[in-house]
Amino acid sequence: MSHTLRDRPKLLQRVRRIRGQLEAIERLLNEEEDSSRVLQTIAACRGAMNGLMVEILAGHVRFHVLDPHRKITPQQTEAAEELINLLGSYLK
Amino acid sequence: MSHTLRDRPKLLQRVRRIRGQLEAIERLLNEEEDSSRVLQTIAACRGAMNGLMVEILAGHVRFHVLDPHRKITPQQTEAAEELINLLGSYLK
Amino acid sequence: MSHTLRDRPKLLQRVRRIRGQLEAIERLLNEEEDSSRVLQTIAACRGAMNGLMVEILAGHVRFHVLDPHRKITPQQTEAAEELINLLGSYLK
Amino acid sequence: MSHTLRDRPKLLQRVRRIRGQLEAIERLLNEEEDSSRVLQTIAACRGAMNGLMVEILAGHVRFHVLDPHRKITPQQTEAAEELINLLGSYLK
Repeated sequence: MSHTLRDRPKLLQRVRRIRGQLEAIERLLNEEEDSSRVLQTIAACRGAMNGLMVEILAGHVRFHVLDPHRKITPQQTEAAEELINLLGSYLK
Repeated sequence: MSHTLRDRPKLLQRVRRIRGQLEAIERLLNEEEDSSRVLQTIAACRGAMNGLMVEILAGHVRFHVLDPHRKITPQQTEAAEELINLLGSYLK
Repeated sequence: MSHTLRDRPKLLQRVRRIRGQLEAIERLLNEEEDSSRVLQTIAACRGAMNGLMVEILAGHVRFHVLDPHRKITPQQTEAAEELINLLGSYLK
Repeated sequence: MSHTLRDRPKLLQRVRRIRGQLEAIERLLNEEEDSSRVLQTIAACRGAMNGLMVEILAGHVRFHVLDPHRKITPQQTEAAEELINLLGSYLK
Protein backbone atom coordinates (compact mmCIF):
# COMPACT_ATOMS: atom_id res chain seq x y z
CA MET A 1 0.00 0.00 0.00
CA SER A 2 1.54 3.27 -1.09
CA HIS A 3 1.85 6.20 1.27
CA THR A 4 -0.62 8.14 -0.85
CA LEU A 5 -3.29 5.57 -0.06
CA ARG A 6 -2.48 5.56 3.63
CA ASP A 7 -2.32 9.29 4.14
CA ARG A 8 -4.94 10.09 1.55
CA PRO A 9 -7.78 11.14 3.88
CA LYS A 10 -5.48 13.55 5.71
CA LEU A 11 -4.14 15.02 2.46
CA LEU A 12 -7.60 15.37 0.94
CA GLN A 13 -8.76 17.16 4.07
CA ARG A 14 -5.90 19.64 3.63
CA VAL A 15 -6.81 20.18 -0.03
CA ARG A 16 -10.42 20.86 0.93
CA ARG A 17 -9.40 23.35 3.58
CA ILE A 18 -7.32 25.22 0.99
CA ARG A 19 -10.30 25.22 -1.38
CA GLY A 20 -12.43 26.72 1.34
CA GLN A 21 -9.86 29.48 1.83
CA LEU A 22 -9.76 30.16 -1.90
CA GLU A 23 -13.54 30.47 -1.95
CA ALA A 24 -13.25 32.98 0.89
CA ILE A 25 -10.72 34.96 -1.17
CA GLU A 26 -13.06 34.91 -4.17
CA ARG A 27 -15.93 36.13 -1.99
CA LEU A 28 -13.83 38.91 -0.47
CA LEU A 29 -12.73 40.06 -3.93
CA ASN A 30 -16.34 40.11 -5.12
CA GLU A 31 -17.60 41.95 -2.08
CA GLU A 32 -15.11 44.74 -2.69
CA GLU A 33 -13.59 44.23 0.71
CA ASP A 34 -10.48 46.18 1.64
CA SER A 35 -7.21 44.55 0.63
CA SER A 36 -6.30 43.97 4.26
CA ARG A 37 -8.68 41.05 4.83
CA VAL A 38 -7.82 39.61 1.43
CA LEU A 39 -4.12 39.75 2.31
CA GLN A 40 -4.68 37.97 5.62
CA THR A 41 -6.79 35.26 4.01
CA ILE A 42 -4.32 34.70 1.23
CA ALA A 43 -1.46 34.51 3.74
CA ALA A 44 -3.35 31.79 5.62
CA CYS A 45 -4.09 30.03 2.34
CA ARG A 46 -0.43 30.13 1.32
CA GLY A 47 0.52 28.68 4.70
CA ALA A 48 -1.95 25.84 4.22
CA MET A 49 -0.60 25.18 0.73
CA ASN A 50 2.96 25.03 2.08
CA GLY A 51 1.75 22.62 4.77
CA LEU A 52 0.24 20.36 2.12
CA MET A 53 3.44 20.49 0.11
CA VAL A 54 5.61 19.56 3.10
CA GLU A 55 3.26 16.64 3.85
CA ILE A 56 3.56 15.36 0.29
CA LEU A 57 7.33 15.92 0.20
CA ALA A 58 7.63 14.01 3.49
CA GLY A 59 5.82 11.04 1.98
CA HIS A 60 8.01 11.30 -1.11
CA VAL A 61 11.17 11.13 1.03
CA ARG A 62 9.92 8.31 3.29
CA PHE A 63 8.36 6.08 0.64
CA HIS A 64 10.03 6.91 -2.67
CA VAL A 65 13.54 8.21 -1.97
CA LEU A 66 13.78 5.60 0.76
CA ASP A 67 12.39 2.24 -0.31
CA PRO A 68 10.36 0.64 2.50
CA HIS A 69 10.88 -2.79 0.86
CA ARG A 70 14.65 -2.57 1.34
CA LYS A 71 16.75 -2.41 4.48
CA ILE A 72 17.09 1.14 5.76
CA THR A 73 19.81 1.97 8.32
CA PRO A 74 18.97 4.07 11.40
CA GLN A 75 21.35 6.71 9.98
CA GLN A 76 19.27 6.94 6.83
CA THR A 77 16.04 7.26 8.77
CA GLU A 78 17.62 10.00 10.87
CA ALA A 79 18.90 11.84 7.78
CA ALA A 80 15.44 11.60 6.19
CA GLU A 81 13.63 12.96 9.24
CA GLU A 82 16.16 15.77 9.56
CA LEU A 83 15.52 16.71 5.94
CA ILE A 84 11.75 16.66 6.48
CA ASN A 85 12.08 18.90 9.54
CA LEU A 86 14.17 21.38 7.58
CA LEU A 87 11.64 21.42 4.73
CA GLY A 88 8.94 22.11 7.29
CA SER A 89 10.81 25.12 8.63
CA TYR A 90 11.81 26.47 5.19
CA LEU A 91 8.35 26.21 3.72
CA LYS A 92 6.50 27.98 6.47
CA MET B 1 -12.96 53.40 -7.74
CA SER B 2 -10.72 51.18 -5.63
CA HIS B 3 -8.02 49.04 -7.19
CA THR B 4 -9.87 45.93 -6.15
CA LEU B 5 -12.75 46.94 -8.35
CA ARG B 6 -10.54 47.75 -11.30
CA ASP B 7 -8.34 44.66 -11.18
CA ARG B 8 -11.08 42.38 -9.95
CA PRO B 9 -11.63 40.38 -13.15
CA LYS B 10 -7.91 39.65 -13.45
CA LEU B 11 -7.63 38.66 -9.79
CA LEU B 12 -10.73 36.46 -9.95
CA GLN B 13 -9.32 34.74 -13.00
CA ARG B 14 -6.16 33.95 -11.03
CA VAL B 15 -8.22 32.58 -8.13
CA ARG B 16 -10.14 30.33 -10.52
CA ARG B 17 -6.96 29.03 -12.08
CA ILE B 18 -5.66 28.10 -8.63
CA ARG B 19 -8.96 26.35 -7.86
CA GLY B 20 -8.57 24.35 -11.04
CA GLN B 21 -5.09 23.30 -9.97
CA LEU B 22 -6.37 22.28 -6.54
CA GLU B 23 -9.04 20.16 -8.15
CA ALA B 24 -6.34 18.50 -10.22
CA ILE B 25 -4.40 17.76 -7.02
CA GLU B 26 -7.51 16.29 -5.42
CA ARG B 27 -8.08 14.11 -8.48
CA LEU B 28 -4.45 12.93 -8.53
CA LEU B 29 -4.62 12.04 -4.84
CA ASN B 30 -7.82 10.08 -5.39
CA GLU B 31 -6.48 8.26 -8.42
CA GLU B 32 -3.53 6.99 -6.42
CA GLU B 33 -1.11 8.62 -8.78
CA ASP B 34 2.56 8.57 -7.95
CA SER B 35 3.75 11.46 -5.81
CA SER B 36 5.79 12.87 -8.68
CA ARG B 37 2.83 14.28 -10.64
CA VAL B 38 1.23 15.52 -7.43
CA LEU B 39 4.45 17.32 -6.53
CA GLN B 40 4.66 19.01 -9.92
CA THR B 41 1.03 20.10 -9.80
CA ILE B 42 1.35 21.45 -6.30
CA ALA B 43 4.52 23.33 -7.26
CA ALA B 44 2.62 24.98 -10.12
CA CYS B 45 -0.27 25.73 -7.78
CA ARG B 46 2.04 27.30 -5.20
CA GLY B 47 3.57 29.45 -7.95
CA ALA B 48 0.10 30.62 -9.00
CA MET B 49 -0.77 31.43 -5.38
CA ASN B 50 2.42 33.46 -5.01
CA GLY B 51 1.54 35.29 -8.22
CA LEU B 52 -1.90 36.17 -6.85
CA MET B 53 -0.35 37.37 -3.62
CA VAL B 54 2.16 39.62 -5.40
CA GLU B 55 -0.68 41.06 -7.48
CA ILE B 56 -2.70 41.89 -4.37
CA LEU B 57 0.36 43.23 -2.52
CA ALA B 58 1.13 45.44 -5.52
CA GLY B 59 -2.36 46.92 -5.39
CA HIS B 60 -1.99 47.37 -1.64
CA VAL B 61 1.24 49.35 -2.12
CA ARG B 62 -0.04 51.44 -5.05
CA PHE B 63 -3.49 52.28 -3.69
CA HIS B 64 -3.35 51.96 0.09
CA VAL B 65 0.23 52.66 1.24
CA LEU B 66 0.38 55.36 -1.40
CA ASP B 67 -2.79 57.43 -1.51
CA PRO B 68 -3.82 58.20 -5.12
CA HIS B 69 -5.84 61.20 -3.88
CA ARG B 70 -2.72 62.91 -2.57
CA LYS B 71 0.35 64.21 -4.34
CA ILE B 72 2.94 61.46 -4.86
CA THR B 73 6.53 62.39 -5.78
CA PRO B 74 8.33 60.57 -8.60
CA GLN B 75 10.76 59.28 -5.94
CA GLN B 76 7.87 57.66 -4.07
CA THR B 77 6.51 56.05 -7.22
CA GLU B 78 9.97 54.73 -8.01
CA ALA B 79 10.42 53.37 -4.46
CA ALA B 80 7.00 51.69 -4.67
CA GLU B 81 7.71 50.01 -8.01
CA GLU B 82 11.11 48.86 -6.79
CA LEU B 83 9.46 47.28 -3.77
CA ILE B 84 6.86 45.55 -5.96
CA ASN B 85 9.60 44.17 -8.22
CA LEU B 86 11.47 42.80 -5.23
CA LEU B 87 8.32 41.17 -3.87
CA GLY B 88 7.80 39.57 -7.26
CA SER B 89 11.27 38.06 -7.22
CA TYR B 90 11.12 36.93 -3.58
CA LEU B 91 7.73 35.30 -3.87
CA LYS B 92 8.44 33.22 -6.92
CA MET C 1 18.45 62.22 8.64
CA SER C 2 17.72 59.15 6.55
CA HIS C 3 16.50 55.94 8.09
CA THR C 4 19.71 54.20 7.11
CA LEU C 5 21.64 56.58 9.30
CA ARG C 6 19.27 56.13 12.21
CA ASP C 7 19.01 52.36 12.12
CA ARG C 8 22.54 51.82 10.91
CA PRO C 9 24.03 50.39 14.13
CA LYS C 10 21.22 47.85 14.41
CA LEU C 11 21.53 46.84 10.75
CA LEU C 12 25.33 46.57 10.93
CA GLN C 13 24.98 44.37 13.99
CA ARG C 14 22.71 42.05 12.00
CA VAL C 15 25.20 41.96 9.13
CA ARG C 16 28.00 41.03 11.53
CA ARG C 17 25.94 38.26 13.10
CA ILE C 18 25.34 36.81 9.64
CA ARG C 19 29.08 37.01 8.89
CA GLY C 20 29.77 35.12 12.09
CA GLN C 21 27.34 32.41 11.01
CA LEU C 22 28.97 32.20 7.58
CA GLU C 23 32.38 31.78 9.23
CA ALA C 24 30.89 28.94 11.30
CA ILE C 25 29.62 27.32 8.09
CA GLU C 26 33.07 27.67 6.52
CA ARG C 27 34.67 26.08 9.58
CA LEU C 28 32.18 23.21 9.62
CA LEU C 29 32.82 22.54 5.94
CA ASN C 30 36.57 22.52 6.52
CA GLU C 31 36.35 20.29 9.57
CA GLU C 32 34.51 17.64 7.57
CA GLU C 33 31.58 17.80 9.92
CA ASP C 34 28.48 15.85 9.06
CA SER C 35 25.97 17.69 6.88
CA SER C 36 23.48 17.85 9.75
CA ARG C 37 25.25 20.60 11.70
CA VAL C 38 25.99 22.47 8.49
CA LEU C 39 22.31 22.34 7.56
CA GLN C 40 21.24 23.67 10.95
CA THR C 41 23.78 26.49 10.83
CA ILE C 42 22.82 27.48 7.32
CA ALA C 43 19.13 27.43 8.25
CA ALA C 44 19.88 29.84 11.12
CA CYS C 45 21.97 31.98 8.77
CA ARG C 46 19.19 32.11 6.20
CA GLY C 47 16.75 33.17 8.90
CA ALA C 48 19.10 35.97 9.97
CA MET C 49 19.45 37.09 6.35
CA ASN C 50 15.68 37.19 5.95
CA GLY C 51 15.46 39.20 9.16
CA LEU C 52 17.94 41.74 7.80
CA MET C 53 16.01 41.95 4.56
CA VAL C 54 12.70 42.57 6.32
CA GLU C 55 14.36 45.31 8.41
CA ILE C 56 15.67 47.04 5.30
CA LEU C 57 12.36 46.59 3.44
CA ALA C 58 10.55 48.08 6.43
CA GLY C 59 12.76 51.18 6.30
CA HIS C 60 12.21 51.36 2.55
CA VAL C 61 8.42 51.37 3.03
CA ARG C 62 8.41 53.82 5.94
CA PHE C 63 10.92 56.33 4.58
CA HIS C 64 10.97 55.98 0.80
CA VAL C 65 7.57 54.70 -0.35
CA LEU C 66 6.04 56.96 2.29
CA ASP C 67 7.67 60.38 2.39
CA PRO C 68 8.13 61.55 6.00
CA HIS C 69 8.30 65.16 4.77
CA ARG C 70 4.73 65.00 3.44
CA LYS C 71 1.45 64.51 5.20
CA ILE C 72 0.67 60.83 5.74
CA THR C 73 -2.86 59.77 6.65
CA PRO C 74 -3.48 57.29 9.48
CA GLN C 75 -4.87 54.92 6.81
CA GLN C 76 -1.56 55.03 4.95
CA THR C 77 0.44 54.37 8.10
CA GLU C 78 -1.84 51.44 8.90
CA ALA C 79 -1.51 50.04 5.36
CA ALA C 80 2.29 50.38 5.56
CA GLU C 81 2.55 48.58 8.91
CA GLU C 82 0.24 45.84 7.69
CA LEU C 83 2.48 45.34 4.66
CA ILE C 84 5.60 45.21 6.86
CA ASN C 85 3.97 42.61 9.14
CA LEU C 86 3.08 40.47 6.14
CA LEU C 87 6.63 40.71 4.78
CA GLY C 88 7.90 39.62 8.17
CA SER C 89 5.71 36.53 8.13
CA TYR C 90 6.42 35.65 4.48
CA LEU C 91 10.17 36.00 4.78
CA LYS C 92 10.63 33.84 7.85
CA MET D 1 35.05 9.73 1.24
CA SER D 2 32.05 11.79 2.26
CA HIS D 3 30.32 14.15 -0.14
CA THR D 4 31.41 17.08 1.97
CA LEU D 5 35.02 16.23 1.25
CA ARG D 6 34.41 15.84 -2.45
CA ASP D 7 32.35 18.95 -3.01
CA ARG D 8 34.14 21.01 -0.40
CA PRO D 9 36.04 23.38 -2.72
CA LYS D 10 32.85 24.25 -4.59
CA LEU D 11 30.90 24.80 -1.36
CA LEU D 12 33.67 26.91 0.18
CA GLN D 13 33.76 29.04 -2.95
CA ARG D 14 30.03 29.67 -2.56
CA VAL D 15 30.50 30.60 1.10
CA ARG D 16 33.24 33.07 0.15
CA ARG D 17 31.08 34.65 -2.52
CA ILE D 18 28.33 35.19 0.05
CA ARG D 19 30.86 36.73 2.46
CA GLY D 20 31.92 39.12 -0.29
CA GLN D 21 28.29 40.13 -0.80
CA LEU D 22 27.83 40.68 2.93
CA GLU D 23 30.90 42.91 2.99
CA ALA D 24 29.37 44.90 0.13
CA ILE D 25 26.15 45.28 2.16
CA GLU D 26 28.16 46.44 5.18
CA ARG D 27 29.99 48.99 3.00
CA LEU D 28 26.75 50.27 1.46
CA LEU D 29 25.20 50.68 4.91
CA ASN D 30 28.25 52.60 6.12
CA GLU D 31 28.37 54.81 3.06
CA GLU D 32 24.78 55.91 3.63
CA GLU D 33 23.78 54.68 0.23
CA ASP D 34 20.12 54.74 -0.69
CA SER D 35 18.17 51.65 0.29
CA SER D 36 17.71 50.67 -3.35
CA ARG D 37 21.27 49.42 -3.89
CA VAL D 38 21.25 47.75 -0.49
CA LEU D 39 18.03 45.94 -1.38
CA GLN D 40 19.46 44.70 -4.68
CA THR D 41 22.66 43.49 -3.05
CA ILE D 42 20.82 41.72 -0.28
CA ALA D 43 18.49 40.07 -2.80
CA ALA D 44 21.54 38.74 -4.66
CA CYS D 45 23.06 37.61 -1.37
CA ARG D 46 19.88 35.81 -0.36
CA GLY D 47 19.83 34.06 -3.72
CA ALA D 48 23.43 32.91 -3.22
CA MET D 49 22.59 31.67 0.26
CA ASN D 50 19.64 29.69 -1.09
CA GLY D 51 21.94 28.24 -3.77
CA LEU D 52 24.39 27.10 -1.09
CA MET D 53 21.57 25.56 0.90
CA VAL D 54 20.22 23.62 -2.09
CA GLU D 55 23.74 22.34 -2.81
CA ILE D 56 24.14 21.10 0.75
CA LEU D 57 20.61 19.63 0.82
CA ALA D 58 21.36 17.83 -2.46
CA GLY D 59 24.46 16.24 -0.93
CA HIS D 60 22.42 15.34 2.14
CA VAL D 61 19.82 13.54 0.01
CA ARG D 62 22.35 11.77 -2.25
CA PHE D 63 24.82 10.67 0.41
CA HIS D 64 22.96 10.54 3.72
CA VAL D 65 19.30 9.82 3.02
CA LEU D 66 20.45 7.46 0.29
CA ASP D 67 23.37 5.32 1.39
CA PRO D 68 25.95 4.99 -1.43
CA HIS D 69 27.28 1.78 0.18
CA ARG D 70 23.94 0.02 -0.28
CA LYS D 71 22.06 -0.95 -3.39
CA ILE D 72 19.91 1.92 -4.70
CA THR D 73 17.18 1.22 -7.24
CA PRO D 74 16.79 3.45 -10.33
CA GLN D 75 13.39 4.46 -8.92
CA GLN D 76 15.05 5.74 -5.76
CA THR D 77 17.66 7.70 -7.72
CA GLU D 78 14.89 9.21 -9.81
CA ALA D 79 12.84 10.13 -6.73
CA ALA D 80 15.93 11.73 -5.14
CA GLU D 81 16.78 13.82 -8.20
CA GLU D 82 13.15 14.91 -8.52
CA LEU D 83 13.20 16.05 -4.90
CA ILE D 84 16.47 17.97 -5.45
CA ASN D 85 15.02 19.69 -8.53
CA LEU D 86 11.94 20.74 -6.55
CA LEU D 87 14.09 22.10 -3.72
CA GLY D 88 16.06 24.08 -6.28
CA SER D 89 12.89 25.67 -7.65
CA TYR D 90 11.33 26.33 -4.21
CA LEU D 91 14.44 27.89 -2.73
CA LYS D 92 15.14 30.37 -5.49
